Amino acid sequence: MLNPCNQDFADRLATALPGLSLKPAEARYLEEPRGKYFGQPSFVAAPRSTDEVAAVVRFCAEARVGIQPYGGGTGLVGGQLSDKGPANLILSMENMRALRSLDPLENTMVVEAGMTLADIHDAAEDAGRLFPLTYGSKGTAQIGAGLAVNSGGVNVLRYGMARSLCLGVEAVMADGSIFHGLKRLRKDNTGYDLRHLLIGSEGTLGIITAASLALSPMPARVGTAFMDIAGPDAALDLLARLRDAAGETVSAFEIMSREGFEFLSETFPDTRQPLDPVPDWSVLIELGTPEAIDPDAVLEEVFAAALEDGLVTDGMIATSGAQRDEFWAVRETIPEANRVIGAVASHDISLPLSEIAGFLEETGAKVRAIADVRINAFGHLGDGNLHYNMFPPKGRKAAEFKAAAPDITRLVHDAVAARGGSFSAEHGIGRLKTGDLERYGDPAKLAAMRTIKGALDPVGILNPGVVLS
Amino acid sequence: MLNPCNQDFADRLATALPGLSLKPAEARYLEEPRGKYFGQPSFVAAPRSTDEVAAVVRFCAEARVGIQPYGGGTGLVGGQLSDKGPANLILSMENMRALRSLDPLENTMVVEAGMTLADIHDAAEDAGRLFPLTYGSKGTAQIGAGLAVNSGGVNVLRYGMARSLCLGVEAVMADGSIFHGLKRLRKDNTGYDLRHLLIGSEGTLGIITAASLALSPMPARVGTAFMDIAGPDAALDLLARLRDAAGETVSAFEIMSREGFEFLSETFPDTRQPLDPVPDWSVLIELGTPEAIDPDAVLEEVFAAALEDGLVTDGMIATSGAQRDEFWAVRETIPEANRVIGAVASHDISLPLSEIAGFLEETGAKVRAIADVRINAFGHLGDGNLHYNMFPPKGRKAAEFKAAAPDITRLVHDAVAARGGSFSAEHGIGRLKTGDLERYGDPAKLAAMRTIKGALDPVGILNPGVVLS
Repeated sequence: MLNPCNQDFADRLATALPGLSLKPAEARYLEEPRGKYFGQPSFVAAPRSTDEVAAVVRFCAEARVGIQPYGGGTGLVGGQLSDKGPANLILSMENMRALRSLDPLENTMVVEAGMTLADIHDAAEDAGRLFPLTYGSKGTAQIGAGLAVNSGGVNVLRYGMARSLCLGVEAVMADGSIFHGLKRLRKDNTGYDLRHLLIGSEGTLGIITAASLALSPMPARVGTAFMDIAGPDAALDLLARLRDAAGETVSAFEIMSREGFEFLSETFPDTRQPLDPVPDWSVLIELGTPEAIDPDAVLEEVFAAALEDGLVTDGMIATSGAQRDEFWAVRETIPEANRVIGAVASHDISLPLSEIAGFLEETGAKVRAIADVRINAFGHLGDGNLHYNMFPPKGRKAAEFKAAAPDITRLVHDAVAARGGSFSAEHGIGRLKTGDLERYGDPAKLAAMRTIKGALDPVGILNPGVVLS
Repeated sequence: MLNPCNQDFADRLATALPGLSLKPAEARYLEEPRGKYFGQPSFVAAPRSTDEVAAVVRFCAEARVGIQPYGGGTGLVGGQLSDKGPANLILSMENMRALRSLDPLENTMVVEAGMTLADIHDAAEDAGRLFPLTYGSKGTAQIGAGLAVNSGGVNVLRYGMARSLCLGVEAVMADGSIFHGLKRLRKDNTGYDLRHLLIGSEGTLGIITAASLALSPMPARVGTAFMDIAGPDAALDLLARLRDAAGETVSAFEIMSREGFEFLSETFPDTRQPLDPVPDWSVLIELGTPEAIDPDAVLEEVFAAALEDGLVTDGMIATSGAQRDEFWAVRETIPEANRVIGAVASHDISLPLSEIAGFLEETGAKVRAIADVRINAFGHLGDGNLHYNMFPPKGRKAAEFKAAAPDITRLVHDAVAARGGSFSAEHGIGRLKTGDLERYGDPAKLAAMRTIKGALDPVGILNPGVVLS
């Protein structure tokens, strides 16, 4: 059993580590973006070095006090706070934001866990390089937490999830020992890959304090298009054609449904919609190419053939940076519109690509049979990742559908599982989905996870209640 | 303590699982390519299904008999046989070679562990797709073992190691339970990544029985060049320029030294050498591009600028498939030449790219101070992976240097460690490098590895003595 992080514990910690930044937790540490959970009053320790992190962890292990690793606080599954049980010490990485090194010829950089994605992007760009991990919260989200949850975003299609961009990590283990794993190597077959075990473990197996990251060349040219497509299957065919034509340079392939555009008209009527009339389905495509490829020429050629074959019925290729920004604003405003309307239920799912069209058709009908909701499906089609969300009809409130929401979510997740998909594509498990993991997780995997957690963190001090309840 | 796999055990296993293919081990199961280890007499079980693998594992767990997972037998670190301690049951995947599914639109295929790389290449090609994992032994090497050791090869620069090409695995754990993890998803953040833990664990944490693999578009055009370069640093600069010009389409960037060419003249005098006079250092470059890029034009342009800047002094771009094959024959015959001459010591190392030139200069001098050897450094420069091997002077034999070999290896590995490199870039640990892992491995990582092994395989039946001695 763990002990609470109370005033007495904080006093003892302050005495033991007099240089440590330690203070009562302000409100912002006890909230999360969706307002589903509220953290208990506690204290925030913000170490300035890896050694200081290790000292805090050793002290907590000795005192049997839980640790709540804390990055930018932007997670969507409640993994960044503790709402029940003995209060955890909040261990914030905000004072570890240093860029330790950057080598453009090597295409590597080494950063501390508290550096924000935006700061990493800037540092890479200054050296003529790209660090492609990016999502809406990039100005606040920190790399250490981004790796801990194996975050995704719009560039996964081309560059992979966070784990694909990480060459090595430095981490403090549950006993306070430091794993010095900041290799800058593409190849290193020397035993079990502790890096990949820590990435995606959401702070339950170790605390990532620094990371070495892989950089990419900056694309020299960008081409962006909006296309009206015949349906999700046509979109996949179109994606395959684009990749045959332009290889890995297809960096985004985002699908949007008519519902999303109607939400925009309802909530942000000034957003200019690229295609008129609004299609049932459309895709936003971006190519980021080296000098040797003319992205617009590729887009035009693929579009012309797809038009002839009936895959697309209309389309626009951005002719200026302003138009490109307009296209992206549509895609990026859809989640905002969703927030304004207020979701009945939302799902961060992924499916094998060949299952997407069937899933949408079958599950949509079943959901509507349960409740009279509007469904807004959008997301990273190239990765098989859909944000599949339900909303009240115009003029009604999400709260009216509160009773139906659990049934809808169960139905959606059952359908995803039956088609070999995932009930958490990019947001992780946190506190929100521990029940789903138990329900849908492979039993042998769950058993292995519990065994590993019990072996590496026998007292259970690291992010208690997250991932495994 | 484990019990031996003897006649009595084999009789009991045959009685318990009457349908199982079980026979005394022929000589080929007890040998490995470098002849450093010889396996003990034993029995070979070759299950036909995952359920049968699980039944064998449960039987061995009960009987406390070790299991030696066996793929194509092509590993170079002795991980595929047991030369001491109680004999293991050899568990061969040779009867599990089925292609379970292939979907070209999804870019996925699901294969059983015993399928060879060559058969996988053929199946992918028939569907117009590329499975890029490839190396010399592809006709024999099996995918399950290739994943177990996280194998590499010539395409890692572009497509990553084996782990990057695997979307999911099915595996039998040490207690005989089956991990059903054959997801065909690019995004799946549902708990600890057991797949990545099993990949690279060399059969010590579970036995991979099937895998879902990521396919790529087949490059439409190929461009191949041989260039004479000013040195390793110039090569890295050249690589960065190529990537700026052609993005991810740079699929191979192999470095060779003058020594390698001299070995070719000595042993395979008919091999045509592209550049005359033979340069101190040269690189073999390959671009595999979509239709939209003319690879030869990129190679010419980069070459012209590099010539002007003194990075390269001569070069040839292949003008036919035959010439391309000739270029590759040079690269691929170097390991053959090495075998004919006979190495004093060989090292599969990787380094941060910025450390390569300094390493070669400094370590070469130190090695030559110990022994009058010839050094042949060649390999996958783009990945920082060098095969760094020592040979006797012309007319002398490797055996004469036997006494110096351990000192040379120690010196090389110490120098690699001091520069943040790896003593095993792609071949793994096996039996050969367990001592190196103990010497150079991070203590916190080693402790975590031992904890995980002890927790997931408490009796220690899976590949005993491999990775952790």
